[in-house]
Amino acid sequence: MAAKPIEEGLEFTPKFDENGLIPVIAQDAKTGEVLMVAYMNRAALDLTIQSGCATYFSRSRQKLWKKGEESGHVQKVEQILVDCDQDCIILKVTVDAGQCHVGYQSCFYRALKKGSDKDLKNIADKVFDPGKIYKT
Amino acid sequence: MAAKPIEEGLEFTPKFDENGLIPVIAQDAKTGEVLMVAYMNRAALDLTIQSGCATYFSRSRQKLWKKGEESGHVQKVEQILVDCDQDCIILKVTVDAGQCHVGYQSCFYRALKKGSDKDLKNIADKVFDPGKIYKT
Repeated sequence: MAAKPIEEGLEFTPKFDENGLIPVIAQDAKTGEVLMVAYMNRAALDLTIQSGCATYFSRSRQKLWKKGEESGHVQKVEQILVDCDQDCIILKVTVDAGQCHVGYQSCFYRALKKGSDKDLKNIADKVFDPGKIYKT
Repeated sequence: MAAKPIEEGLEFTPKFDENGLIPVIAQDAKTGEVLMVAYMNRAALDLTIQSGCATYFSRSRQKLWKKGEESGHVQKVEQILVDCDQDCIILKVTVDAGQCHVGYQSCFYRALKKGSDKDLKNIADKVFDPGKIYKT
């Protein structure tokens, strides 16, 4: 299987899907913890590169969303990684405490219980009270 | 903003998208390195839970794909995490050397150069020769 230019090349040509979006993983640059997954359109990616602060495209609100614009929990982008076929991005970010709107550091605060296909367990404690931060 | 049952609840109810797929991050359980991102349909998720080996749905081939079925580089699933709105999954996996078909440990072997919006640089070395493993 010969490697393709998009795989071995050094030109950044992110592939946006049929909705013009690319999935983006925000990963804590220090700890390696995966904090969240969101989506970017071209404008969000350009803004992120230019500003150094993570900006996503909210699928539910259909608009650009600077992470932390309401909560203050911004993501300072240290590095932008892309995968082999350039259809997924990792942002290595520096963050303060509390990246998930539910109150946890990471959105991934639950795990499937061993031997079950439907029961979750909490694997993290909340680090802030979202009721004190979000107004709506 | 009151938390929703899907966010605070302990029932695993993964949300598949309009194509019946959910994005899945494979993360090295020991090092925290993000290895790859792929997709699962319901059958792939069930097989992964039942077998303990990561099985994805290949969008290009439109079929189930047990990771490592050709290369031998399987992923042993240690833990399955889900995010707040249950539309993304992390597999914490134990792996051997070389998870990306291009020859690297991780699919994320390139990063955007500082100050550029189009130039990538390699940030990893290959750990195997894919020409010796893949036949086509």
